[in-house]
Amino acid sequence: MTPQEVVGAFIAAIEARDVDAALALLAEDVSYENMPMDPIVGREMTGMVLHSYLDISTDVEWRIVREVVDGDVVINERVDRFHIGGGWMELPVAGFWEVRDGLITRWRDYFDMTAYTTQLAGLTGG
Amino acid sequence: MTPQEVVGAFIAAIEARDVDAALALLAEDVSYENMPMDPIVGREMTGMVLHSYLDISTDVEWRIVREVVDGDVVINERVDRFHIGGGWMELPVAGFWEVRDGLITRWRDYFDMTAYTTQLAGLTGG
Repeated sequence: MTPQEVVGAFIAAIEARDVDAALALLAEDVSYENMPMDPIVGREMTGMVLHSYLDISTDVEWRIVREVVDGDVVINERVDRFHIGGGWMELPVAGFWEVRDGLITRWRDYFDMTAYTTQLAGLTGG
Repeated sequence: MTPQEVVGAFIAAIEARDVDAALALLAEDVSYENMPMDPIVGREMTGMVLHSYLDISTDVEWRIVREVVDGDVVINERVDRFHIGGGWMELPVAGFWEVRDGLITRWRDYFDMTAYTTQLAGLTGG
């Protein structure tokens, strides 16, 4: 698979809420970085974080707004959508993915955390 | 100038805190989008916003971490640094720039707003 195909397969696994399939596309020492927070390092820790937001969602859709490939780097603008409780959360995200030997070694997302927490509170009645 | 050169000249003007020079590189109907907030439309409104954060800074440095060009689109990962009061604010940003006829028509930044407001409060004693 090309780097773009690897990232596409990863996002398809996320949308299927299949954490195991998603983790199989990550390098063992993957660095998952929600900027500017500290990196989440390793497949196991990343799996825990994925579960934390996929398990509360009944439907997940990550729309690609734009995607550019530069060698082993895939960049996408996305709208990450999560159906939680009775409604959809929509989060604009910029993702920078580095792929080596068919596995994602770094996944860096930029987004406004408050847009996430505010919508989450609204949907969960928090 | 190429799209990359236009964006580079814009960032150089920002670092020089020369709002007029920066605005001269924007299309009249530029859309300046700090995601997920509503777009700031037009050169005049964008100038007001630029003044709001450049005028309180005594030094500005936008470090390019990575830059990829795809036709008329320039994408950069940056660390936008502002010296305010006695210290530096550092903000990781993902920027997506669209350039037409030597002018920036869309400037879209993704970042964590709370990282900005929290540091700003710390530096200004707010």
